[in-house]
Amino acid sequence: MGEIRVPVDKLWGAQTQRSYENFKIGTERMPERLIGAFALLKKAAAQVNRELGGLTPEKAEAIAQAADEIVQGRWHDEFPLVVWQTGSGTQSNMNVNEVIAHRGSELMGDGTRIHPNDDVNRSQSSNDTFPTAMHVAGVIAVEQELLPALELLQATLHSKMEAYASIVKIGRTHLQDATPLTLGQEISGWWAMLEQTARMVRSSVDTMRELAIGGTAVGTGLNAHPEFGARVAEALTRETGTRFVSAANKFHALTSHDQIVYAHGALKALAANLMKIANDVRWLSSGPRCGIGEITIPENEPGSSIMPGKVNPTQSEAMTMVVCQVMGNDAAIGFAASQGNFELNVFKPVIIHNFLQSVRLLADSMRSFNDNCLAGMEPNRAVIQRNLEQSLMLVTALNPYIGYEKAASIAKQAHKEGLTLKESALRSGYLTAEQFDSYVKPEDMVHPKA
Amino acid sequence: MGEIRVPVDKLWGAQTQRSYENFKIGTERMPERLIGAFALLKKAAAQVNRELGGLTPEKAEAIAQAADEIVQGRWHDEFPLVVWQTGSGTQSNMNVNEVIAHRGSELMGDGTRIHPNDDVNRSQSSNDTFPTAMHVAGVIAVEQELLPALELLQATLHSKMEAYASIVKIGRTHLQDATPLTLGQEISGWWAMLEQTARMVRSSVDTMRELAIGGTAVGTGLNAHPEFGARVAEALTRETGTRFVSAANKFHALTSHDQIVYAHGALKALAANLMKIANDVRWLSSGPRCGIGEITIPENEPGSSIMPGKVNPTQSEAMTMVVCQVMGNDAAIGFAASQGNFELNVFKPVIIHNFLQSVRLLADSMRSFNDNCLAGMEPNRAVIQRNLEQSLMLVTALNPYIGYEKAASIAKQAHKEGLTLKESALRSGYLTAEQFDSYVKPEDMVHPKA
Amino acid sequence: MGEIRVPVDKLWGAQTQRSYENFKIGTERMPERLIGAFALLKKAAAQVNRELGGLTPEKAEAIAQAADEIVQGRWHDEFPLVVWQTGSGTQSNMNVNEVIAHRGSELMGDGTRIHPNDDVNRSQSSNDTFPTAMHVAGVIAVEQELLPALELLQATLHSKMEAYASIVKIGRTHLQDATPLTLGQEISGWWAMLEQTARMVRSSVDTMRELAIGGTAVGTGLNAHPEFGARVAEALTRETGTRFVSAANKFHALTSHDQIVYAHGALKALAANLMKIANDVRWLSSGPRCGIGEITIPENEPGSSIMPGKVNPTQSEAMTMVVCQVMGNDAAIGFAASQGNFELNVFKPVIIHNFLQSVRLLADSMRSFNDNCLAGMEPNRAVIQRNLEQSLMLVTALNPYIGYEKAASIAKQAHKEGLTLKESALRSGYLTAEQFDSYVKPEDMVHPKA
Amino acid sequence: MGEIRVPVDKLWGAQTQRSYENFKIGTERMPERLIGAFALLKKAAAQVNRELGGLTPEKAEAIAQAADEIVQGRWHDEFPLVVWQTGSGTQSNMNVNEVIAHRGSELMGDGTRIHPNDDVNRSQSSNDTFPTAMHVAGVIAVEQELLPALELLQATLHSKMEAYASIVKIGRTHLQDATPLTLGQEISGWWAMLEQTARMVRSSVDTMRELAIGGTAVGTGLNAHPEFGARVAEALTRETGTRFVSAANKFHALTSHDQIVYAHGALKALAANLMKIANDVRWLSSGPRCGIGEITIPENEPGSSIMPGKVNPTQSEAMTMVVCQVMGNDAAIGFAASQGNFELNVFKPVIIHNFLQSVRLLADSMRSFNDNCLAGMEPNRAVIQRNLEQSLMLVTALNPYIGYEKAASIAKQAHKEGLTLKESALRSGYLTAEQFDSYVKPEDMVHPKA
Repeated sequence: MGEIRVPVDKLWGAQTQRSYENFKIGTERMPERLIGAFALLKKAAAQVNRELGGLTPEKAEAIAQAADEIVQGRWHDEFPLVVWQTGSGTQSNMNVNEVIAHRGSELMGDGTRIHPNDDVNRSQSSNDTFPTAMHVAGVIAVEQELLPALELLQATLHSKMEAYASIVKIGRTHLQDATPLTLGQEISGWWAMLEQTARMVRSSVDTMRELAIGGTAVGTGLNAHPEFGARVAEALTRETGTRFVSAANKFHALTSHDQIVYAHGALKALAANLMKIANDVRWLSSGPRCGIGEITIPENEPGSSIMPGKVNPTQSEAMTMVVCQVMGNDAAIGFAASQGNFELNVFKPVIIHNFLQSVRLLADSMRSFNDNCLAGMEPNRAVIQRNLEQSLMLVTALNPYIGYEKAASIAKQAHKEGLTLKESALRSGYLTAEQFDSYVKPEDMVHPKA
Repeated sequence: MGEIRVPVDKLWGAQTQRSYENFKIGTERMPERLIGAFALLKKAAAQVNRELGGLTPEKAEAIAQAADEIVQGRWHDEFPLVVWQTGSGTQSNMNVNEVIAHRGSELMGDGTRIHPNDDVNRSQSSNDTFPTAMHVAGVIAVEQELLPALELLQATLHSKMEAYASIVKIGRTHLQDATPLTLGQEISGWWAMLEQTARMVRSSVDTMRELAIGGTAVGTGLNAHPEFGARVAEALTRETGTRFVSAANKFHALTSHDQIVYAHGALKALAANLMKIANDVRWLSSGPRCGIGEITIPENEPGSSIMPGKVNPTQSEAMTMVVCQVMGNDAAIGFAASQGNFELNVFKPVIIHNFLQSVRLLADSMRSFNDNCLAGMEPNRAVIQRNLEQSLMLVTALNPYIGYEKAASIAKQAHKEGLTLKESALRSGYLTAEQFDSYVKPEDMVHPKA
Repeated sequence: MGEIRVPVDKLWGAQTQRSYENFKIGTERMPERLIGAFALLKKAAAQVNRELGGLTPEKAEAIAQAADEIVQGRWHDEFPLVVWQTGSGTQSNMNVNEVIAHRGSELMGDGTRIHPNDDVNRSQSSNDTFPTAMHVAGVIAVEQELLPALELLQATLHSKMEAYASIVKIGRTHLQDATPLTLGQEISGWWAMLEQTARMVRSSVDTMRELAIGGTAVGTGLNAHPEFGARVAEALTRETGTRFVSAANKFHALTSHDQIVYAHGALKALAANLMKIANDVRWLSSGPRCGIGEITIPENEPGSSIMPGKVNPTQSEAMTMVVCQVMGNDAAIGFAASQGNFELNVFKPVIIHNFLQSVRLLADSMRSFNDNCLAGMEPNRAVIQRNLEQSLMLVTALNPYIGYEKAASIAKQAHKEGLTLKESALRSGYLTAEQFDSYVKPEDMVHPKA
Repeated sequence: MGEIRVPVDKLWGAQTQRSYENFKIGTERMPERLIGAFALLKKAAAQVNRELGGLTPEKAEAIAQAADEIVQGRWHDEFPLVVWQTGSGTQSNMNVNEVIAHRGSELMGDGTRIHPNDDVNRSQSSNDTFPTAMHVAGVIAVEQELLPALELLQATLHSKMEAYASIVKIGRTHLQDATPLTLGQEISGWWAMLEQTARMVRSSVDTMRELAIGGTAVGTGLNAHPEFGARVAEALTRETGTRFVSAANKFHALTSHDQIVYAHGALKALAANLMKIANDVRWLSSGPRCGIGEITIPENEPGSSIMPGKVNPTQSEAMTMVVCQVMGNDAAIGFAASQGNFELNVFKPVIIHNFLQSVRLLADSMRSFNDNCLAGMEPNRAVIQRNLEQSLMLVTALNPYIGYEKAASIAKQAHKEGLTLKESALRSGYLTAEQFDSYVKPEDMVHPKA
């Protein structure tokens, strides 16, 4: 392969450099969170290798320290490789090995050389470390980014659904006026959508706790101690504070990414729900004069210099664009996961790139949507009340008193002549204003009784 | 492989029967239109084989007649195979060969036996006939189903855009009130969306006029006369009345389905536009009281037995569901087209199944939407006018007369106190009612002048 | 809306007829399994209505009997409506109501008329019955079709992985020769892929056990007894033998289909795994002479009349085409599920159509693949052994005896001159044939020891 | 909205700052190429505004100069906004306006202030400039990045297809041995795949030459001179050297992105073809001992330290991962394009982000694949020859001499006993070695004659 020159001020080595030069493709660097997970893994592996006698305590310590520095983000510029490299991520594994070996040797300070392969990568292969790092990164990203943002949004919705529990409003199905419900009930639907998908995310991400480590090159574990995988999983659990286990079948763990497809399916379900919520918010706040206008949302940027009240629902727009991206990412992941052959799936970097991007975008946009839009959302009580009164749907409340036929004729006349129900009812002569007011109580229509 | 029994009352033979028994998967039969295209191809091939001396005139005639009967739909039940069979569609090619051979032999009436392989499939292979039939079926489906429906919809829109050219209404961006335009202009946008995508469909489908025929098993044309492909393409052109040519590179023609991916991309662009149009229609007709309500659409089914005026936009709903399916089909086609190996792509049936389904669903839903919804769509002039008058956006028309500052203050007051612009303007004292009416003319805002 | 004529020999009524005439779109009928689930629901609802006093025992019994007949498939032709109708599926609900009412009245035989709305649809709305039927149909389809087929495939793989536990073969990563493993280990990876996704399917489908019933038109449960939903869920559990519960939040249940998106994500994970397995099978059986050829699969159809041994992997092809379709369906479902507005998602029919199609296709193709391919798969021991012997990868076994340098030189020479490792080793003079045979034991490389 | 503080060392202004603070979502900045296109547009608009009398020559000149600096990449850090902002891209338009105004004012040096709205954005709106910049950026990216890379790859393939025109090799269909073709023919299929999709890309991207500019806020062109759009398109044509025209219907231009969906459909067709080519390359080079091994590709990175000849097809892997991403991007674009409402589609940033990413990734990976893999690809003549000789498919050449029956029996015996065809033929006694050699000439099977 010939010689290769590595910049003297870099910690990385020849393998990193070759990949850097051979894959000038795009700008998407291997995700930082994946590099961090790799560093956690190398630290755990060093501990286990020390326990099993394959590494001196001093080297293991130096590797751990170098790995910690990477996790803390100190060596961010030392990981220049892009997503679009070998599909096993071999050179990103080597990038981590090289940087840790170089930095670890520096830290030892006694001239001892830590070897990227023999020491840092000891008992490991790219083929088991990369999928391990994928799972560790994915689980941590979901736990530290996604779920807290989701819970924040849920908390806001929960307080709104309680605050607006008694605001009766018109319901809408098929975009058409329907029977009433409370604004609190409507928002409870949004809250329940998040609650459901939060459970799906937690449950499906649990399947990613199984780690490939210990399988080495093809899954047989050649060159690794039989306990290596289980011990590393334990060490990672201690280090991260979240549970990981050694995968029962390593052949599966190297060649299938079903767990990521499945977990991203939960992200897609969440995305579908967020699209619906963001759409409801912008439609309910549409106007100010010629839309629905039942809620108001904060005015964060100038909508128009001349027209007061034009508040563009920009947080909804950012969120729904994120949803489009997540849908696309889902297609990319499913495709990539289906393309494994024999003992290895070589579409790993594109899979984890898309998974982590979805997590990040969903988390950030939920937080942004919460802080800059939903928290400041307010009901426009006047509009809600006017819509409710204008609606013809309330006529159903008259059935028990004057019968279906007369009630329907009142509604038809109202529709035809543009009257309110009450106007039409009075004009019909079937009942008095007092009767109307005592019979037609929308608040009684929203909570069925036995 | 052992013996196989074919029902005595069937025209098909052993190969069809084996596939029938070995692939009990789903209910999706090989598309009728594809079978029809196969029959056209077999007739054309028989003609060319006769010209080139490989088939007696009598046999060629009998094959042509049997093929005609298939095209006319007479033997619909003789093609029982499903989409989910071999990816080359070999057994569907054999199904056609077997039925034509059997029926052709009957038609000859003199005891002569037409052979499915040696006669009907002469100079052909499944590998070149199946992609040929895919292209022929696709082009015909687009020309006979899709484009007429699309043109029908365009014609309706064109007449509406002319009829409503002078109805000034509020514009909406970000779902928020914006500067006015005419209803005719708004509809012209829909019309232009169809016009654009009609051109895309025509242009991209033109690439499907190139046929694989003549390539035989791997693209070299082994066992076929060098002129076979070109002559069959000419015969198909004569028979169908639409142009087909022999593909310049047969290796491409067997192993790539880029043309179908590309043409379906145009269908997806059309679908995206239809989604937008169908959504606009249902939002503009939302209400009757608590939505936008600027147009009315026909009431085709009972929306609610008690509430007059609840007209569910069911044609929009059917169309937007079709759009979802077309988006899904697009993903299936792109995936399948990417999975060829060496001299053949063996995902042919799933590709053409999805392509023809999209054509059919788009065509039918456009026609249904046109006939049952758009043709009867009417402007609700009172609502349009009220929205326009209520809008604060018209304040921009006052700038030249009273200056930006005063105009803005009028709008702000109107928004704050729930006034119309005119009410707020009069209350401000900056201008009279006559002045207001002469300055604020929305119709002047919709057609910029030099 | 004017009059409408219903064929005299049909059990359906005016609402069905209107939809039938207004939606001439495609050929995809509302899935039979959904109609069956609707019938189960109507029977359960009738029981509960009787309990709660809204229906006479005689009517409830007639409704139950008519519903049973539908479940048994007796009235298949009475459900002519297509998927591409109103997005709430209202007319399919009415179709079921009308047929049951008509048939139930017949069954009563005493002139009593069962009313489609007041009796069959009592305490219900399309908006809660349709999503309920979606979930019931989906759960049953997965339990009765998908999981049994999946378990069948798993059982075959399990017996193969045990039978071939001692056949050592070359491993492959990046399509390149790698360290060895046993054929049983390779197959255990496939088995574990199914085991994992079976768990995902079960777990995610469990979320579909929550039913919308009891929410009626907008989720408030207007016109239904507060216990109606829970009681119907119990009755369905009794009737079907599988657990269903009333959804805790009905607003969610009408407007979100996150559970179906999620469950279909598990189907997609399964599909991705099946693609990998089907691809491995066809690549391992590629040849007969110029491919990998390490396994043989049954010859089910003629591959070529002249070339013995050309066995096209048609079952793999059918399965991988199904996978493409499932990927497309997943995109369609995710899109549709994101498009709800306010109190209702009106993309229900397209969602359940795609879900049930995926279940059916996956189940059928797994069964077909199992019966017609995998069950008859056999190792080609001669080829496996030849490949193993030819491989240069085994050189790693020499390291402990002659050192890395000499071992590498043996491998390099073998590669350069086209020798086997043994030939090159003997030529090198570093060791004898006896030594080579005692050192190079691939079977020791597949099971690492402490 | 309250006060906002902008860093003193920045050229941007309040609107940029607000968006920067309100949308902390992800890391994907608005594409540099889009910012460049915006700068080109602002320069062209300034020229036309000067012509039409709305801008002094001095201001126009300063705007042009500031815009040029942006195009040259000098102000890269002044565009900090992310993709996930308002869906109209308003704040990115304002970002460009603010930076140009600030920098232009500096350049004027006489204290004259250029106003971001009144001067730089004169006669424009975000709603027409953003889609204009999308099209300009897209066309330029395709012309300057994608097509040159595609042509490079084509040129390499063309030289290979000529160089290997006489190397006869076994063909493969269904992964099974088939009739022969030349390596040149096989590569010609790849070349034709690129040729076809290059035409599709050019043709579809042509539709993006239509520009929205001149439509302003809702498409009516309010506040813009009627000739403004056409003149800006001409100025852009002069400036960029590639043709642009003013869109005929501006309502379409603001609210539909059908042209980008369509053009990306061509990119997807290209991607599908690249997947097939990259897969063929890695399968043909699989081995070194236990795969197909008919070609060799350059060894760019260490595959394995111990096993010579293990050359992982990493460039194929990078390319196929890019294909997965393009498929995902296609889904995201189609979805986003379908979600327009009324006068505006507010999913613009996500659409152009995905389009430009696809262009970049396809272009870069084609160039990388060409330089680092395809250019150094060589036939492995010994393996090709051995496979050809071993194949049983050549038996068809004996039919004319000894008849089908005897030929078939030779092939069957060869398959059964593991002989070469020639060995089996000689053993059969039907012909001599000389006869066999003179009859069985694979080179005669690859070019059919009349």
